[in-house]
Amino acid sequence: MKKTILREIGEFGLIRKIREFLEARQKCPEGSFGIGDDTAIIRPPKGYEILITTDAMVEGRHFLIQETSFKEIGQRAMVQNISDIGAMGGTPYVATVSLSLTDSVYLEDILALYEGFMEELTPFDAAIVGGNITKGPNLQIHITLLGIVEEGMAVLRSGAKEGDRILVTGSPGSAHVGLLACHRKIQGFDQLKAAYLKPKHRAREARLLAQNGLCSAMIDISDGLLGDLAHICEESGRGAVIDLDSLPKSKELISATEAFGLDIEEVILGPSDDYELLFTLPEPLKHKARALLEQQGLKVSEIGEILTERGIWLKKGGSLIHRKALGWDHFRDGN
Amino acid sequence: MKKTILREIGEFGLIRKIREFLEARQKCPEGSFGIGDDTAIIRPPKGYEILITTDAMVEGRHFLIQETSFKEIGQRAMVQNISDIGAMGGTPYVATVSLSLTDSVYLEDILALYEGFMEELTPFDAAIVGGNITKGPNLQIHITLLGIVEEGMAVLRSGAKEGDRILVTGSPGSAHVGLLACHRKIQGFDQLKAAYLKPKHRAREARLLAQNGLCSAMIDISDGLLGDLAHICEESGRGAVIDLDSLPKSKELISATEAFGLDIEEVILGPSDDYELLFTLPEPLKHKARALLEQQGLKVSEIGEILTERGIWLKKGGSLIHRKALGWDHFRDGN
Repeated sequence: MKKTILREIGEFGLIRKIREFLEARQKCPEGSFGIGDDTAIIRPPKGYEILITTDAMVEGRHFLIQETSFKEIGQRAMVQNISDIGAMGGTPYVATVSLSLTDSVYLEDILALYEGFMEELTPFDAAIVGGNITKGPNLQIHITLLGIVEEGMAVLRSGAKEGDRILVTGSPGSAHVGLLACHRKIQGFDQLKAAYLKPKHRAREARLLAQNGLCSAMIDISDGLLGDLAHICEESGRGAVIDLDSLPKSKELISATEAFGLDIEEVILGPSDDYELLFTLPEPLKHKARALLEQQGLKVSEIGEILTERGIWLKKGGSLIHRKALGWDHFRDGN
Repeated sequence: MKKTILREIGEFGLIRKIREFLEARQKCPEGSFGIGDDTAIIRPPKGYEILITTDAMVEGRHFLIQETSFKEIGQRAMVQNISDIGAMGGTPYVATVSLSLTDSVYLEDILALYEGFMEELTPFDAAIVGGNITKGPNLQIHITLLGIVEEGMAVLRSGAKEGDRILVTGSPGSAHVGLLACHRKIQGFDQLKAAYLKPKHRAREARLLAQNGLCSAMIDISDGLLGDLAHICEESGRGAVIDLDSLPKSKELISATEAFGLDIEEVILGPSDDYELLFTLPEPLKHKARALLEQQGLKVSEIGEILTERGIWLKKGGSLIHRKALGWDHFRDGN
């Protein structure tokens, strides 16, 4: 199929095509107006607060065009924003998309990107109501996603109390090792590769926890398990102890970390593009939370406890090691 | 003064500095929480709708770091978003800022950028409630700005009716010629240079027009006068005639276009980074609108009329020429 290069149709041609695509694919929330004015207008339902998050994906940094389809890039970009709304106990509502494009990109690829956005937004009846397109040296996707949550029901990072149990969903570290397996073109490890290539948010499950009062603090672990636990501790003015023996270790993660000569515990605790949930809750509620998540087909592990004293400690067998929390940092260590 | 290069303090170090800067400079709207969780939470006042707009500024395309101060870049980036909120009749409320940075940028320059953002937001008691920072090949600033407007009071592009007068504020085209004067390092033309380097929004004046029912359609002319008039015509299902003899021609604009060998009318109608207002209103209201704007120290010119038939016509002396509308297009004609 012959593709249409962007400079043939121009910025307004592209915007028109995107608008047509969106109008066919989505319905704006009731009372809202979308693309086609200086700004979009939204009228959130009564009794709700609005959540705002923004996140970006940059070519060559967060993805390689050669390795990923445009639809997958679009999905991943939206997933990371949806994950943040979910971790507050909210549900996605409307998004804006600001793109930086080179003029040698194809219309069909940009529409595939939007296909990816909508694939993730449609299940929530959420819509893209605005955007911007500019020329730049590479592809960049900057998304701002608004969510809604019932008044007073947002789950903050700051609610963790001493004695609260720390739980985490899924198999953190998988995306990190999956990325290595992709880069090194190693056969197998399909679950790990999928964790990297097609990450999933846990927004629906997070909202279920929040609506049922089953979390005192919650965060998605996009900065790594330890990095995001540190965020909870910092905002809650508390510390934490993690029991390394209780970290979730999938068979694939065990064999891949062995094959790659990696310390599995460091992988689980460190930076990895898993959008799993890390949350805290009082001990008596943990069985209810576990049952609820497992009903949704989501694995959950109890990995530690919130402490009064600041700092993060790692427990292994009988020994306790103080550990400075580390998160993903774009500008350090040659990242 | 020794400057701090970004890679010394890392992403989280930078975020902490930005957060400290913002906490000292701004107050989040009542009931809102800002930076420091997965998302920000806002609770807009009752009886208001929310406006959303997004716009970007890219190094090498919209500005050159060598020619502009970081504070000015920040101001300009925010002005173009505020202008869109204003053109809907709204007032700025909260913003998110998504940055792409190289790791050789300085902390002090990024804080100057935020100084520029706040310089423009503070007069509206608006706050920056979220953001993202990523590494990229150049500096890019992607802002999403939310505004608020009383329910049902937003001014759309689609409200123009036949017979409505077309008015424009200020001196469109100034920024375009000012940019040329800067690039060619030509002495003088200070007003034109200022129009390019320190553009002003007309959000306050736009809101006054809206609140007093003095506009049927309104837009800011960031795509050029003719391009944005075409947007109004398209969304309103109408056409327009522009009287070239009534276009506002400042002394500096006349002498600069003569010096540069440019057609002054094409300059006024064409793409230019002026954030002036283009609006339509029924004939009987025009004196009231004019008086109100002039009271605010803003020049306003009546330049044409809305027609039933589609298309845009230019009137000069006794002749009428049909003119295809042209706007700024990033991907065409080598732009």
